[in-house]
Amino acid sequence: MESFSVPPFPDEKLRQEHLSRLIDYLKIPSVSADPSYAEHLQRCAAYTADQLRWAGLSEVELLSIPGAPPYVVGRRMVDESLPTVLIYGHYDVQPETPVELWTTPPFDPEIRDQRLFARGATDDKGQLFMHVAAIAHLLRCGVDIPYNIIFLVEGEEEIVSPNLQRFLASYGASLKCDLLVLSDTAMWDEGRPAITTSLRGMALMELTLSSAKRDLHSGTFGGAVANPLEMMSRLLTSLKDDEGRVLVEGFYQGVLPVTPTIADELSLIPFNEALWRQEIGISESWGDPDYSLLERLWMRPTLEINGLWGGYNGDGVKTVLPAQAHAKLSMRLVPNQDPAHVLSVVEQHLLAHLPPHAHLEVKQLPGSGRGIRVDGSHPVLQTVRRGLEEAFGEAPLLMGEGATIPVVAALHEALGALPVLIGFALPDAKCHAPDENIHLPTLHTGIEALIRIYSYFSGDLVQK
Amino acid sequence: MESFSVPPFPDEKLRQEHLSRLIDYLKIPSVSADPSYAEHLQRCAAYTADQLRWAGLSEVELLSIPGAPPYVVGRRMVDESLPTVLIYGHYDVQPETPVELWTTPPFDPEIRDQRLFARGATDDKGQLFMHVAAIAHLLRCGVDIPYNIIFLVEGEEEIVSPNLQRFLASYGASLKCDLLVLSDTAMWDEGRPAITTSLRGMALMELTLSSAKRDLHSGTFGGAVANPLEMMSRLLTSLKDDEGRVLVEGFYQGVLPVTPTIADELSLIPFNEALWRQEIGISESWGDPDYSLLERLWMRPTLEINGLWGGYNGDGVKTVLPAQAHAKLSMRLVPNQDPAHVLSVVEQHLLAHLPPHAHLEVKQLPGSGRGIRVDGSHPVLQTVRRGLEEAFGEAPLLMGEGATIPVVAALHEALGALPVLIGFALPDAKCHAPDENIHLPTLHTGIEALIRIYSYFSGDLVQK
Repeated sequence: MESFSVPPFPDEKLRQEHLSRLIDYLKIPSVSADPSYAEHLQRCAAYTADQLRWAGLSEVELLSIPGAPPYVVGRRMVDESLPTVLIYGHYDVQPETPVELWTTPPFDPEIRDQRLFARGATDDKGQLFMHVAAIAHLLRCGVDIPYNIIFLVEGEEEIVSPNLQRFLASYGASLKCDLLVLSDTAMWDEGRPAITTSLRGMALMELTLSSAKRDLHSGTFGGAVANPLEMMSRLLTSLKDDEGRVLVEGFYQGVLPVTPTIADELSLIPFNEALWRQEIGISESWGDPDYSLLERLWMRPTLEINGLWGGYNGDGVKTVLPAQAHAKLSMRLVPNQDPAHVLSVVEQHLLAHLPPHAHLEVKQLPGSGRGIRVDGSHPVLQTVRRGLEEAFGEAPLLMGEGATIPVVAALHEALGALPVLIGFALPDAKCHAPDENIHLPTLHTGIEALIRIYSYFSGDLVQK
Repeated sequence: MESFSVPPFPDEKLRQEHLSRLIDYLKIPSVSADPSYAEHLQRCAAYTADQLRWAGLSEVELLSIPGAPPYVVGRRMVDESLPTVLIYGHYDVQPETPVELWTTPPFDPEIRDQRLFARGATDDKGQLFMHVAAIAHLLRCGVDIPYNIIFLVEGEEEIVSPNLQRFLASYGASLKCDLLVLSDTAMWDEGRPAITTSLRGMALMELTLSSAKRDLHSGTFGGAVANPLEMMSRLLTSLKDDEGRVLVEGFYQGVLPVTPTIADELSLIPFNEALWRQEIGISESWGDPDYSLLERLWMRPTLEINGLWGGYNGDGVKTVLPAQAHAKLSMRLVPNQDPAHVLSVVEQHLLAHLPPHAHLEVKQLPGSGRGIRVDGSHPVLQTVRRGLEEAFGEAPLLMGEGATIPVVAALHEALGALPVLIGFALPDAKCHAPDENIHLPTLHTGIEALIRIYSYFSGDLVQK
């Protein structure tokens, strides 16, 4: 074992100070989706900088990109030749609507049953603060951290970081790092920590299928004019076979097989499919029968319709043949799939399968990103596993995640660092929903786990 | 030829009186779709009764059905053993919205370029008034009409006559008739009269396809749960082959073949397909290749999607797997197809083709009705043809109509009468649209044609 000692963990007094600082942070309604909250985002950026100064970081600055709330960067640079850990987080939050479904007001944090309720409590102010508190504690205890630390905290994650690429183009060179650490994912369950080793990427498009130049009366014209709703249905049906395999030529190009190592990792997951089905109210799962359920969720790409509309959707009847039908499609991608290639082959398939006499417009939507996969046996992950296991008393699971965190792929590609996703969200944290909360025992134990992990990095990252 | 003489036609002074009465009628905003116009409907019913009294009908009454504007009935009964002609019309009109697209206000009738512009000018106050004026003229000229006349004018046609069946259950016995005459259809073109000999019927349903009990995140769940939008697309695609033939077993049951007589009638229609395509902006028509375009429009049933919706349809992206997908379907039926049977076999097909793990709710919507077809060689139609040809100087065409006038099938079934559909709407009458109008030369010539027709009925209907 390494020689770097772990300091005593925060006592009750310090825990109260942590809670107090987090509560002040949560009082700021930093909703990024609503332009009328812009001033609160500015205030929240300033408070984030204050948190980083409190943590003991020497260089803290607000970096501006026109049209975006400030990026908050804090640095503790030891030596440029030493490894650099970049800790990412976001200070913006999801909208608080529908407010009437909250038990207590979303920006008036309240503790009930060992939980702190507020918008952002888990996503992501709470989880970000755990890293801030861990670094603060190490530096106050006088632990000599022999690697560089950079905090990067943005205010647009909940609106898919529309200015991140511009920010990285301007400031990326000063953010080079070896590890990209973030906590914006989940634990497996209370007391059961997890490291997320894969995220799916994304590619998005919108389809508009047209026939006549105006809406037509379905009595006067029915039977003689291609109906865009029917043609859209036929077109969408052509994308998959009836068991869920995508029929687009080239769609699966580059997809890595499920290796024995991955299969082993998946076999360790205590996944209760019956409970999962019950929670969402389905009697059977559905999808490519050549793969298991967890493989389909974490290791295989998808092609899903997220919106479909056209014609009349009000009460009663309007016998119309609409001029247009619309659909929104999303593809979740796995590592080694190129979003641009996938968008291209899907578009080619759609055009090749277009029914006669129909016109199709394909619009690519912003939000593309590659999938991420980290080797579960990477030495850094061993260090993280050790810290989590010692703090929680349970070995962490290596989880996949079917969803996308676009910022991770963007930072990974731009900065070249290994993503380390240590999640502390519990299944009932209600992120993005009313009554979002953070479980306080998990908050405090998570800070202890991070104190261990950042201590162990001192020995494991820096080869002497 | 019969011995019944046709009186002199209305002179300029009488024409002005006709115009004046029609203008007063059009000033009443009798919009049936909007409950806030209820008082205007009452007023319009009273004015309709006044029109019938002016025409010389002795028994005029407003018949009430709770919840419906009055049915206006006017009678001139000669002898119950003699034939009865029932003239149907409606005093309600379509909503005037969007008002800003009208050149002059919709209920402030104005004459421009030989046309009278107002909501209801053609549909149906103007066309109804032509019959009122013709009967009025015959009676004032002292012509002895040796058959019974009943006018039946309702105020809910534009909202699909929701109370007609209840009305007929109460009052149908007193409305027995041999002919059901109405003008709520079109001429072929200016100067070219037409008799509509077929109408398609209707059957309507709404589908709701469900999978999970709530909306799901398409990243977290995509690839493992049946997506209702995809399942709805597959289900709708199963209804037809890729050339437009309906694949529902039993759908075409009872459909009569296109006989040589019908083919002869259709061959006389001066239909310009290129112009038709150009007007609606399509390069090719579409549909069952075993039938000609006019056959598909008038003689064959349809199955069309009128609305399709589910998931997200706003700007940008929401990566949701919605809990439900919805569709509205309409079937246009031809004579000898039973709406109840068609609804039943389509529902059976949908349930039999339902993808696994999906739940389907099928709701039948009100508005069912059978198709209508009148033999073009029927003696009554010969009389009508003669009157139209003499007035307009052109032989009328025997047209089909792909749309549905539910009230015709309902009255035909309830009263057992032969439907005689004499249309005076010109192609640019803009019924249901801004700048609805009636062409005044057509109005006056139409009245002359009806004076002839009702005169000739005296000889042709009544066998001595």
